[in-house]
Amino acid sequence: MNKLFEHINKYSSLGSSAMRDMESALRKIELTKGSFLITEGKTCDHVYFLEHGCLRGYYNLDGKEITYWLAFENNFVTSFFSFISRKPSIEFIQLIEDSVLYSIDYTKLQTLYQKHGDIERMGRIMLERYYVMLEERFLANHFKEAKDRYENLIEKSPHILQRVPLGYIASYLGITQETLSRIRSKA
Amino acid sequence: MNKLFEHINKYSSLGSSAMRDMESALRKIELTKGSFLITEGKTCDHVYFLEHGCLRGYYNLDGKEITYWLAFENNFVTSFFSFISRKPSIEFIQLIEDSVLYSIDYTKLQTLYQKHGDIERMGRIMLERYYVMLEERFLANHFKEAKDRYENLIEKSPHILQRVPLGYIASYLGITQETLSRIRSKA
Repeated sequence: MNKLFEHINKYSSLGSSAMRDMESALRKIELTKGSFLITEGKTCDHVYFLEHGCLRGYYNLDGKEITYWLAFENNFVTSFFSFISRKPSIEFIQLIEDSVLYSIDYTKLQTLYQKHGDIERMGRIMLERYYVMLEERFLANHFKEAKDRYENLIEKSPHILQRVPLGYIASYLGITQETLSRIRSKA
Repeated sequence: MNKLFEHINKYSSLGSSAMRDMESALRKIELTKGSFLITEGKTCDHVYFLEHGCLRGYYNLDGKEITYWLAFENNFVTSFFSFISRKPSIEFIQLIEDSVLYSIDYTKLQTLYQKHGDIERMGRIMLERYYVMLEERFLANHFKEAKDRYENLIEKSPHILQRVPLGYIASYLGITQETLSRIRSKA
């Protein structure tokens, strides 16, 4: 759980009472590659901290799986849309590697927000970060060529090629696997 | 300013001390149609509450203006990406009608967050709402046909055709004005 608190403390510091209550609300989960955290149509009741491993969010479009995002260690993951709005998820979240996660459920998190101002601050700051990341993703889709987005991806996650199947990377970039191979051979 | 506090209180209630401090941090602005709240390349130092009027966010792509979002009364507006990340804005925000707004600057808002737990809660809840709206927009672009997105738009903002030029609506839907006319004639 240390990694989680180290991560949080980079952005917002929690007092010892908030940390204690948060610790007892968290549940450690170990899941194998291929498992799902959430499937389409279910309302997502948990937010997870990914301590170790990696995963992808994808949705089905006319029977095709479209990889929508990828996440590695030290990130909060969930279908934020479903978790916040309490509506059914449109996406699937699937583990690409055996992973270790900590989960907290929706109701417990609301209780922690009510009780601890420093946890509410952390929530506000994390949401700001994830809002900016979502908008960056949105904007990159409009502005950047696949080649630039590939280069950004490699720069941010240099280990991605060793960890994520090329098909998922191509889908994430919105290109075919052949185009991805061409981009890679020129890089 | 009543509309602003009515709006906030729908989602999160503010105590009288928080309301007083927020009132004195707000600045009323009246601007005419065509004015800009933010232009590309500038860091956005304010978040605005749109009390009356309407506006659009757009960006330039290869010399073409792409309308990215539209906002009407009772919404907070800013380049959230720039305001949160403190990086230059990629978009322009331009008034489509003469408008009345209340603005609060970045530093004052941070001070209010530090001082008032109820303002921080409001910030957290508003961010959650805007996160969900951004993701809905993102997902609609992937999942829905222009016709469905047009129908959603009319349902949410029945007055849109009277207030927003058709060219902006077409751009927002990612279609030509001719396609929009065809959709409208069949509706």
